Amino acid sequence: MASLLRSHYPWTSVPFVVGAPMMKITMARLAVAVSKAGGLGFVAGGFDLSGLGKDMDEAAELLKFSSIQSKSGMLPVGIGFQNWGSDINLAMPVIKKHQPAAVWFFAPHRPSDLLPWAKETRAATDGKTKIWVQVGTVAEAIEVAKTTKPDVIVLQGSDAGGHGLQQRAGIISLLPEVSDAFAKAGIEIPLIAAGGISDGRGAAAALTLGASGVAMGTRFLAAEEATIAKGYQNEVLRASDGGVSTVKTKLYDIVRGIIDWPPAYDGRGIVNRSYLDALHGMSDKENQELYKEAMKLGDDGWGPEGRMTTYAGASVGLVDKVMSAEEIVKDVQKGALKVLENTARRFQE
Amino acid sequence: MASLLRSHYPWTSVPFVVGAPMMKITMARLAVAVSKAGGLGFVAGGFDLSGLGKDMDEAAELLKFSSIQSKSGMLPVGIGFQNWGSDINLAMPVIKKHQPAAVWFFAPHRPSDLLPWAKETRAATDGKTKIWVQVGTVAEAIEVAKTTKPDVIVLQGSDAGGHGLQQRAGIISLLPEVSDAFAKAGIEIPLIAAGGISDGRGAAAALTLGASGVAMGTRFLAAEEATIAKGYQNEVLRASDGGVSTVKTKLYDIVRGIIDWPPAYDGRGIVNRSYLDALHGMSDKENQELYKEAMKLGDDGWGPEGRMTTYAGASVGLVDKVMSAEEIVKDVQKGALKVLENTARRFQE
Repeated sequence: MASLLRSHYPWTSVPFVVGAPMMKITMARLAVAVSKAGGLGFVAGGFDLSGLGKDMDEAAELLKFSSIQSKSGMLPVGIGFQNWGSDINLAMPVIKKHQPAAVWFFAPHRPSDLLPWAKETRAATDGKTKIWVQVGTVAEAIEVAKTTKPDVIVLQGSDAGGHGLQQRAGIISLLPEVSDAFAKAGIEIPLIAAGGISDGRGAAAALTLGASGVAMGTRFLAAEEATIAKGYQNEVLRASDGGVSTVKTKLYDIVRGIIDWPPAYDGRGIVNRSYLDALHGMSDKENQELYKEAMKLGDDGWGPEGRMTTYAGASVGLVDKVMSAEEIVKDVQKGALKVLENTARRFQE
Repeated sequence: MASLLRSHYPWTSVPFVVGAPMMKITMARLAVAVSKAGGLGFVAGGFDLSGLGKDMDEAAELLKFSSIQSKSGMLPVGIGFQNWGSDINLAMPVIKKHQPAAVWFFAPHRPSDLLPWAKETRAATDGKTKIWVQVGTVAEAIEVAKTTKPDVIVLQGSDAGGHGLQQRAGIISLLPEVSDAFAKAGIEIPLIAAGGISDGRGAAAALTLGASGVAMGTRFLAAEEATIAKGYQNEVLRASDGGVSTVKTKLYDIVRGIIDWPPAYDGRGIVNRSYLDALHGMSDKENQELYKEAMKLGDDGWGPEGRMTTYAGASVGLVDKVMSAEEIVKDVQKGALKVLENTARRFQE
């Protein structure tokens, strides 16, 4: 199934590395850089699609003179949606115009909400744009596979940064269980692993678990091409011991006044003052007001004593250097291949 | 470092598979069966050591005519302790008498509480009994490495069943981060991965992440030799989609009246009626009373509508068959080697 992916995305090198869409962060520059490096980058559409047309125009412009070997007319980047809040009528003209390599659907109110999205996307680009859906449980994977029938399923483990289901296993358990469930049901859809992977070791692990490729978010927060405040990026570099320095909570949306996510979701971010204050009883209202004040501080609004939401995954402790997206993709690919070879060799006697 | 482990435990085969101590479940029969199969089994001492002497006598008896190639005088099984509640004065005579292959320390009130345990164990068996410590964060791993100086560190990821730190990463992130931190600090201690591993794929993943071996609990809940009620074991076979069918909570201790665990710990178990009732506002007192009633139901006390605590990890969905401990060990070892070889070969061109 990894070869199926390569036939869809012939410019990519192995193992297959995906730049996950991160709202307001993975914009045209980063997404294009990931694809140019031999991965697949996704421009984050988020839930407010009013700027998507402009962002995709920019991606197309950046790719104009690129030598990426793509299928005729297909733009070699994808678009990520937070479907619970996305307007399909804003999305489709952009998809039709740019014919992205893939769309990444996530967090609809109901799985069936994705059906018109998949149908209209396929119609808009004559099947050229592949349908990706990110899920977090075995049940979701099965339901989506049988209804939306996507081309790719992204399995998001509990270590992932940003939004995801409150209740989820890590990919160490989730991936093999979904693989088995798919095999039993005769479902053949490539699985991409997401959540907790930030280097070649995590990527190699995901491949042994049955993934056809890996998606990374947190690692790309430290990409040169990320659209990210210096204060945010510095926090990503600083934080270590991701299991305790990050936390899954709804609070980081609440303080920003974002209250429309489906109730099953929360988000993983670096522990900061907003979170600690809430833990000690501060009201949401006061926390929101203090957040607004903190927004005026610029880069100083981030940090352990800061209040600005700093979504990041449990692998944040593995990220300690800003690198170009190309260096990141190559580092993860080379690292994964080396680890796989060395580990296999250890047991050959 | 994997070869260091084999020199300590010369009867073991690769990859190194450990049967994690599970209180009241991993008793002499299961622990011995794991070691006889080429792994390392641990007899669970738990926190009440009053029966430990008898359990270890039984293990010694079971091993009497075994052909396991062990170091002179060393009993080829380990003992697991929940150190917050264990009486060192009950432990040491047993360790001295049986000279177990290893002791597995876990959950002291303070990391420094382990110092006398390590010192007295080493003195009691002249260093023959190796010191293992299970931790859940990078900070704990570093502190324990520098103070207790154990021979082996078990890294317990968030997918593990039973007790563990409330705040933890999955091993996909935890293992590489600890490996890097150890390399940077010049610490050379083999790491064993625990949490979410139930088959060869998970074991292979752990090895690529940097582990020298894997510890499994949940998978051995379905071992023929486990001391486990049929109702409990049937739940393990039934449950699937472990990220949602299990939950991390303190409630499963509370209903049983176990309230002395250090506050940083909770336990992962299969969602049942006790949990759902608590979620909907039932008082601990009423839940405890209903638990006592449920204890009279025998095997019917377990199940989605049951109340009996059913600790299990997020990989519970991968466990659907009762097998002998030997079959489990061999299946995981063979599976891991096959997956490693196949995955490495996929990328050799």
